[in-house]
Amino acid sequence: MAPSTHRTSLSVRHLVGIKDLTESDIQLILDTAAQFKEVINRPIKKVPSLRDVTIANVFFENSTRTRLSFELAEKRLSADVVNFSASGSSVKKGETLLDTVNNILAMKVDMVVMRHSSPGAPHYLTKHIKANVVNAGDGTHEHPTQALLDSFSIREKLGDVAGKRVAIIGDITHSRVALSNIFCLQKQGAEVMVCGPKTLIPKYIEALGVKVGHDVRQALAWCDVANVLRIQLERQQIKYFPSLREYSLYFGISKQMLDELDRPIVLMHPGPINRGVELTSDAADSSHSIILDQVENGVAVRMAVLYLLAQL
Amino acid sequence: MAPSTHRTSLSVRHLVGIKDLTESDIQLILDTAAQFKEVINRPIKKVPSLRDVTIANVFFENSTRTRLSFELAEKRLSADVVNFSASGSSVKKGETLLDTVNNILAMKVDMVVMRHSSPGAPHYLTKHIKANVVNAGDGTHEHPTQALLDSFSIREKLGDVAGKRVAIIGDITHSRVALSNIFCLQKQGAEVMVCGPKTLIPKYIEALGVKVGHDVRQALAWCDVANVLRIQLERQQIKYFPSLREYSLYFGISKQMLDELDRPIVLMHPGPINRGVELTSDAADSSHSIILDQVENGVAVRMAVLYLLAQL
Amino acid sequence: MAPSTHRTSLSVRHLVGIKDLTESDIQLILDTAAQFKEVINRPIKKVPSLRDVTIANVFFENSTRTRLSFELAEKRLSADVVNFSASGSSVKKGETLLDTVNNILAMKVDMVVMRHSSPGAPHYLTKHIKANVVNAGDGTHEHPTQALLDSFSIREKLGDVAGKRVAIIGDITHSRVALSNIFCLQKQGAEVMVCGPKTLIPKYIEALGVKVGHDVRQALAWCDVANVLRIQLERQQIKYFPSLREYSLYFGISKQMLDELDRPIVLMHPGPINRGVELTSDAADSSHSIILDQVENGVAVRMAVLYLLAQL
Repeated sequence: MAPSTHRTSLSVRHLVGIKDLTESDIQLILDTAAQFKEVINRPIKKVPSLRDVTIANVFFENSTRTRLSFELAEKRLSADVVNFSASGSSVKKGETLLDTVNNILAMKVDMVVMRHSSPGAPHYLTKHIKANVVNAGDGTHEHPTQALLDSFSIREKLGDVAGKRVAIIGDITHSRVALSNIFCLQKQGAEVMVCGPKTLIPKYIEALGVKVGHDVRQALAWCDVANVLRIQLERQQIKYFPSLREYSLYFGISKQMLDELDRPIVLMHPGPINRGVELTSDAADSSHSIILDQVENGVAVRMAVLYLLAQL
Repeated sequence: MAPSTHRTSLSVRHLVGIKDLTESDIQLILDTAAQFKEVINRPIKKVPSLRDVTIANVFFENSTRTRLSFELAEKRLSADVVNFSASGSSVKKGETLLDTVNNILAMKVDMVVMRHSSPGAPHYLTKHIKANVVNAGDGTHEHPTQALLDSFSIREKLGDVAGKRVAIIGDITHSRVALSNIFCLQKQGAEVMVCGPKTLIPKYIEALGVKVGHDVRQALAWCDVANVLRIQLERQQIKYFPSLREYSLYFGISKQMLDELDRPIVLMHPGPINRGVELTSDAADSSHSIILDQVENGVAVRMAVLYLLAQL
Repeated sequence: MAPSTHRTSLSVRHLVGIKDLTESDIQLILDTAAQFKEVINRPIKKVPSLRDVTIANVFFENSTRTRLSFELAEKRLSADVVNFSASGSSVKKGETLLDTVNNILAMKVDMVVMRHSSPGAPHYLTKHIKANVVNAGDGTHEHPTQALLDSFSIREKLGDVAGKRVAIIGDITHSRVALSNIFCLQKQGAEVMVCGPKTLIPKYIEALGVKVGHDVRQALAWCDVANVLRIQLERQQIKYFPSLREYSLYFGISKQMLDELDRPIVLMHPGPINRGVELTSDAADSSHSIILDQVENGVAVRMAVLYLLAQL
């Protein structure tokens, strides 16, 4: 039942960031995910590929939907799954990250999927443990499986990523999605623009070879795909850009703005959506939107990543 | 291993409320539950009926015991189970109910069991999603599986629900159990009385064709079955009826009160019990009580509901 | 696939405390655990021994790592597992311990693994319920599986427990590990010393026939095994011994202190470690340390306990 592809293994033992992947790693993951997408759309959604593999989902930050997507991917692969969340755990008792993870591994866990608030935490782990590590988001650094599912969704919708123009719109600074997407899209030959208020675009971004814009209508006019990031309401300790109302006024995207382009445009969003802030409801629910496809593809892409890492 | 009955399907695709069920829907569920109760009392408690069905338990309110009962029912049916609780989830990040559930469904979930604090939330869902929805309690509106397990327990103890007199005693206003029980009992031909302090009985209740009483001894003298509701200590923001002490004094039920009736009476309680408030300990633990049977029957009834909905 | 030993059953139906076990119960558990340790080091880590047994992990106190170890042990035995944690549960709604557990059991649960803050809670349960009870820690009383895994680890490292000198070092008063270890080691013929500041050693301890010391260097000079307990930073409501800095100064153990003994010494710690308080990092990571072996052995020992109790 294992999917077959002409290249059959990754060049890395861990998925810490898109930065570490080659272009053919990315293709292998996306090709494998396409086969798993067929699997999860059959009446029998499971394959025995990772039977006898134990995977721990170690979430030092809450992320119900990412955790759920990984958990379903793991169960579809017939892996044994244990969940470890930081709340109330030994982490609060002053234990180091490495001790926590080594303890979990000593219980004979084969792979670790980790969400952590500190950039670099998964990279640090790979230097010290034997198990495969999958980064499920490390602070505002990388969130590689999100970028892979975004590319998968673009490829599924438009046939290819190469040559496409993708605008990443919104709060670039506080996003864990932006950087991984930039790396992933560029490695596949797409052109990338980031667009948002100046206060929400980090200075280093131009060094990555992306266009930078501050006018959402110009960005929409330029791109084939608009990947709209969420305004992270829950992080309002951030001294934010004037106000949500202003954000919505200057950067919010409506169905009308998309319709007026008078050519196809693909609308994406990593979720959860703030309806009425970064997107109006009619935009989110329009035929331009592939937002729910992204969610579905997330399970297939995560199955592919876990499957491929387990072969190494 | 599938249980057989002469009618084999429900008239509804969702279990939102008892109000939507026909009398023969109720019979079909209770008959099917009787067969599943045999299953869970065998050494091998599992059937493969829902293998390859994925069920999400989506609890926007905590309810450990209802969630546990559903989870066991799902596992006994060999379903794949994922749990989603609202604490720390995207719900707190400002996502709408429909977006949350659509996201879960996009991950190829077949059925949703939902507890929500807002009356009508599950009904709203059924209008917008394809998966089967089971209401595990929506605010103070309905809690249909509780009413079904109560009727199952009465039928098991007394042979039939039709013609029986059932008194529902306690805080009717803030209960999610009362309304579902009234509908369920009446559809099966039982007579229903509600009994409690005037401040805890809603005005609309008389329009449902139930007797209304305020004297617990009269209610006990009248009924075959006393279904005693819990005083919800944890909702004390409610400007409650004078005090717990007074409640216990005027409406608390002791074993002696039941023994003095000098004829069989069945004592029920949906749990958790406040011992010494609505029931004395000796009443709860008396031979009149079928409280633990209710809990056991809950798993069988939920298996029946999930099994029957999955056939549609 | 069931492990075989010459004695094949325990003298107890529950594992409430080491105090209740005979020496041959302990040997049976450790011998069985040795066989399960082989199992979990095979590529296929599962045995079907407890298929069709449902186990509830009922944790009234948070303990992520103990819960995880039990959960993995249960899954390796192919048991059905449900987790019940007190946060947000009916416990908060004023339900008694016995009602909570009886409700869980009424759902056809076969075994209960319980962590509770009150000493004696598991013992109380065994008097009132039919299921097997495993104590996963009751306040500062017993934590029997920890003591068993400690003995297993000593036996594995040194060949035998009998005749060995074991020093338990640190906060004896607030530990749930100390008492179980004293019973377990003495029953197997080891000599035990407790060592710590006077304020953290309870008066009753001398009556148990252990040596009492207050000088960590003397303790290390005397013992074959140093089992170092953690300072429970999270319980700082405790009016603690002067300060962490002083504790570390007078009782903290460094690699140098162990190396200077100039003979083999085994260093143990139940985790989570406060690096820099009770142990320096170089001590914890030294070749003297078997701390991660303890964690691995925990799964095997818990498999053995659950397997043996399920036979009764």
